[in-house]
Amino acid sequence: MTTIKAYGTESPTADLELIQIERRNILENDVKIDILYCGVCHSDIHSARNDWGNAKYPLVPGHEIVGRVLEVGTGVSKFKEGDLVGVGCLVDSCQTCSACEDDLEQFCEKGMVGTYNGPNKHTGKQTFGGYSTSIVVREEFVLLVPENLDIKAVAPLLCAGITTFSSLNHWNIKKGDKVGVIGLGGLGHMGIKFAHAIGAETIMITTSPDKAKDAKRLGADAVLISKDEDEMAKHKGSFDFLLNTVPVKHDMNPYIQLLKRDSTMVMVGAIEPLEPMHGGSIIMGRKRVAGSLIGGIKETQEMLDFCGEHNIVSDVEMIDIQEINNAFDRVTKNDVKYRFVIDMKSLKTS
Amino acid sequence: MTTIKAYGTESPTADLELIQIERRNILENDVKIDILYCGVCHSDIHSARNDWGNAKYPLVPGHEIVGRVLEVGTGVSKFKEGDLVGVGCLVDSCQTCSACEDDLEQFCEKGMVGTYNGPNKHTGKQTFGGYSTSIVVREEFVLLVPENLDIKAVAPLLCAGITTFSSLNHWNIKKGDKVGVIGLGGLGHMGIKFAHAIGAETIMITTSPDKAKDAKRLGADAVLISKDEDEMAKHKGSFDFLLNTVPVKHDMNPYIQLLKRDSTMVMVGAIEPLEPMHGGSIIMGRKRVAGSLIGGIKETQEMLDFCGEHNIVSDVEMIDIQEINNAFDRVTKNDVKYRFVIDMKSLKTS
Repeated sequence: MTTIKAYGTESPTADLELIQIERRNILENDVKIDILYCGVCHSDIHSARNDWGNAKYPLVPGHEIVGRVLEVGTGVSKFKEGDLVGVGCLVDSCQTCSACEDDLEQFCEKGMVGTYNGPNKHTGKQTFGGYSTSIVVREEFVLLVPENLDIKAVAPLLCAGITTFSSLNHWNIKKGDKVGVIGLGGLGHMGIKFAHAIGAETIMITTSPDKAKDAKRLGADAVLISKDEDEMAKHKGSFDFLLNTVPVKHDMNPYIQLLKRDSTMVMVGAIEPLEPMHGGSIIMGRKRVAGSLIGGIKETQEMLDFCGEHNIVSDVEMIDIQEINNAFDRVTKNDVKYRFVIDMKSLKTS
Repeated sequence: MTTIKAYGTESPTADLELIQIERRNILENDVKIDILYCGVCHSDIHSARNDWGNAKYPLVPGHEIVGRVLEVGTGVSKFKEGDLVGVGCLVDSCQTCSACEDDLEQFCEKGMVGTYNGPNKHTGKQTFGGYSTSIVVREEFVLLVPENLDIKAVAPLLCAGITTFSSLNHWNIKKGDKVGVIGLGGLGHMGIKFAHAIGAETIMITTSPDKAKDAKRLGADAVLISKDEDEMAKHKGSFDFLLNTVPVKHDMNPYIQLLKRDSTMVMVGAIEPLEPMHGGSIIMGRKRVAGSLIGGIKETQEMLDFCGEHNIVSDVEMIDIQEINNAFDRVTKNDVKYRFVIDMKSLKTS
């Protein structure tokens, strides 16, 4: 075991602060990573504050990790010292169930191991995330990051990026499709970038007219203000796909009305009881409301490669780790464009 | 115009009674049908009582019609006098929009014409349904009924039958798939028959243990009592498809839990605001909740042909038209196994 510095919390109500945690020494198939940057995901806040009721303390968040390989185990062939790599939401899974065989480790039937707050089979305790100086991960869960990208802005691709990419990919969104991205936050801004890069007619759907300019800069062809009933009526029945990134429950019926017959709205944000939808909304037009959860490791690598080709990264606001509690408050108020990323140098030198 | 006898109502609160209505004389592409039997669909009651707020009076219900061709227009080639035919929920559509071109007239973009309470372009008033002695329908909306079937029990195939057949067909349900049919009523009992005939492992899912015996007689391989949490837990994540025929809002989350990853629950019954589902229910396992509405004319003919091959009809309780108000009350209490069918002789001789 090696003791390292991290930022974590001991209780749902305490601020995050500097703590010491232990990382295992590398095993045969492990990769040890010097963490350069870590994104701040809304899930980090839900977990730290135990909003989902399953938090184990101390809790060290962070599952949007970018760093360089420090050392590899004797059995590792895919990575070598100095490689630019990423770690997302998962660090382990059974590797043998039908979900893992289908490269969908996020749905591992034995239970995937989250990058933090997951069951750590090596220590018997919980896993600790990327708000730390280094991490040891089995090679199957380490991703290669294209060197041409702006490294600081890569971290959010590992969660916000793959979540939106996977939805578009799974539902075969292609050039010319009319795609609506609902909600402009960490997920939504990546949804726009990916839909635009695919060549879809990309419409930002938002309640806020003041987001229009930014949405277009990010790649939206047009902006639809969901409170404008006349505009919504004009777009009725015209969308091939809706990517709903709104992180809280909301009236879904007006959005479902926007879908073409036999089309789908995918929910990726609201992990809570949704507002009632009308049965007629989906029965008329044979529509679908579906869910999607991050992506498997293979697809995450495909997403990173796609980003490398298309030069896609997140729009980020850099912070030092000492600013994390303030950043949490601002994320809660949706006051960030569009993702905080922690420069981990600030932890190493603290 | 020809004046004929029908059973209809003049207001949402009045009983149905004998009235006179007018039918157009046949045009070039029309088929005139002597109505032998008409099924009693729950929609008939919703419409008569104006539950959906769009009823026009007098309202003559009935969209599960079986009869014999009396006469055909000069341009009709598909039918001749004496043919055994059916008419379902639709009697007209634009025939040119993309939905009509895809043989999905139920989703006609100009608006399909319901068999009753729809806009009648010939009279400028509303259409009148099958609680009547005869009907005139353009040939594109007339279906050929296989002569080998028990005619009395065919009528409900035109609505309850196609609704369930189309869902299974659209989602490519095949031999060996594990299919759950939720709710045992007019729709559910047809769902069981079709899923069983396709060769699916057919599980009846119901709140009522006393329905188990009947479900097995209808073709269910097993019955899952949804109130039994232990049994529900055993089936968790095991279904390839769920056909949800429950006609009213209900907690969908326990059913969604039954689905395999990437599988679908189709709602065909509850045309009303549904109870909230949990976002996590569909996000975990990338599941889908979809809708389905009857079927197009081509698919309805395929359904009837399938029924002819597999000798499938509904389980019916025959009534005279004079018993219709009592039948409505019994349908409302779910006290029918599983569909009332009116013997229209009782109207003709009244």
